[in-house]
Amino acid sequence: MKQGFDDVMSKVQKCGRKTVAVSVAQDSAVLEAVKEAKARGIADAILVGDEAKIREVAASIDMDLTGYEIIDEPDMIAASLKAVKLAHDGRADMYMKGLIETKDFLKSVLDKEVGLRTGNPLSHVCVFEIPGIDRLLFLTDVAFMTYPTLEDKVHIIQNTIPVCNACGVEMPKVAPLAAVEVVNPKMPATVEADQLTKMNEAGDITGCIIDGPLSLDLAIDPEAAKHKGATHRKIQGDADVLLFPDIHAGNLVYKAIVHMVKMRNGCILTGTKVPVILTSRSDTFETKVNSIALAAVVAEEMKKG
Amino acid sequence: MKQGFDDVMSKVQKCGRKTVAVSVAQDSAVLEAVKEAKARGIADAILVGDEAKIREVAASIDMDLTGYEIIDEPDMIAASLKAVKLAHDGRADMYMKGLIETKDFLKSVLDKEVGLRTGNPLSHVCVFEIPGIDRLLFLTDVAFMTYPTLEDKVHIIQNTIPVCNACGVEMPKVAPLAAVEVVNPKMPATVEADQLTKMNEAGDITGCIIDGPLSLDLAIDPEAAKHKGATHRKIQGDADVLLFPDIHAGNLVYKAIVHMVKMRNGCILTGTKVPVILTSRSDTFETKVNSIALAAVVAEEMKKG
Repeated sequence: MKQGFDDVMSKVQKCGRKTVAVSVAQDSAVLEAVKEAKARGIADAILVGDEAKIREVAASIDMDLTGYEIIDEPDMIAASLKAVKLAHDGRADMYMKGLIETKDFLKSVLDKEVGLRTGNPLSHVCVFEIPGIDRLLFLTDVAFMTYPTLEDKVHIIQNTIPVCNACGVEMPKVAPLAAVEVVNPKMPATVEADQLTKMNEAGDITGCIIDGPLSLDLAIDPEAAKHKGATHRKIQGDADVLLFPDIHAGNLVYKAIVHMVKMRNGCILTGTKVPVILTSRSDTFETKVNSIALAAVVAEEMKKG
Repeated sequence: MKQGFDDVMSKVQKCGRKTVAVSVAQDSAVLEAVKEAKARGIADAILVGDEAKIREVAASIDMDLTGYEIIDEPDMIAASLKAVKLAHDGRADMYMKGLIETKDFLKSVLDKEVGLRTGNPLSHVCVFEIPGIDRLLFLTDVAFMTYPTLEDKVHIIQNTIPVCNACGVEMPKVAPLAAVEVVNPKMPATVEADQLTKMNEAGDITGCIIDGPLSLDLAIDPEAAKHKGATHRKIQGDADVLLFPDIHAGNLVYKAIVHMVKMRNGCILTGTKVPVILTSRSDTFETKVNSIALAAVVAEEMKKG
């Protein structure tokens, strides 16, 4: 294993202590993850929401609230704006969704006054540690952008590079995926994959090595790459970033891995001023904790950059 | 396990003995699979191709050719037409690709005189047995149709039902997949999934239960379906057929499973008069043997129908 989530956890310990602002924090699954993150030294938290409910939920999960800053705001929308402002103002290093609808949470992220806009589109990256693969895989976008254009794909790649860097991958290999590894004008995904590759060669996309279109076996399996005689390719089963043609392909692969493979993962939203943690209720406890750790190392990386 | 590949193998034993016509048979990987299929009582074979080369390859893998009919035809295209004609004329029950380019093999399948056309479009179905899932999953189309229209998807479903039936699934549950489980006019895959569901409810597509759009977790994971409160759905984590929106989504999921999961699988081409076995060189020996077994039970089912 060249790098895995244990390495991410080690990196977190070397960062300065980070703080996550939690939006509408009265959620037991989110507070459990926040509690674990604090216990493991990953991050402190500022809990924004209905204080009475936060205290009630915390008691129900044996969480000691000593040492947590709590900002009492019973109204959900107002709470989300107060929480995101903490990240906007630099008082928090990451921003995390609690018991609030995703659309309302995203409104706070995109708020023009106190939100986390950078001018670039937001995208989602999910990081997997999969048995048999000797490195982390960065899947994007499996949850946020529906049908990314070529320009969107450039932004997705640029959003993902700092996440790779934060996890110790200096010059990530990016595989724009398709069903096939050759350009076919009848398959727009392959044409765009080729365009991204050429933009990278021309120096228009830097900080990574792009080689596409690639089928998934050529992207992740060195044996398959050898078997198919792909010795001329820049990626030969050693891709770091898997760039999906659209959300259906990305999301279906993401869920196939989550439901069929014994793996570790964590996900964040990028393209924002600070990393945003948008876990879903169906994510496991470990995924939530991993996502906070991932956000912490990315926050550190973004400060450097 | 309600059904798995062991059940397919048991069913083969109960069928009348089947015969596969092999197109350009001088291929060691294909002959190894054919030899194993004969040894296990799955199928006999008629080997069409360059007899000298067939004997040479057979000797190299310790394959005794006694009991095999061999038709000597050194020209590859001519061999493929002679082989497919055996299936066309009913002398063989299945048709299998050997050492011939896929496009030339498919030309023989689609040949107007001696081929296996039915008037319906061809589609590919890949059958998986996956640890933790108590039944076979039928993935379609992960390899053949690129961007199926609504009408194509109807044909894909109709092509897949006999494969399910052959494997013991009487009334397969078909999940037209997407990134989300609600209809979104901005996502054509979800609209078509809904149309297929309504066509099924109206009795225009019979022999199966269709419920879509479905995300992959709702399609295959009963726990996830329960967690998401999907109690009103016809499919609650118990789908048999996974219908993909396009070849990118299908192929990427297919390869994710093949390369990340310890599974058993077999694949055939359907929509033809008899099942067609189109394994690729990168398929394992077991996959090739499973594909012949799958074709054998489907051939039996098609005779019944």
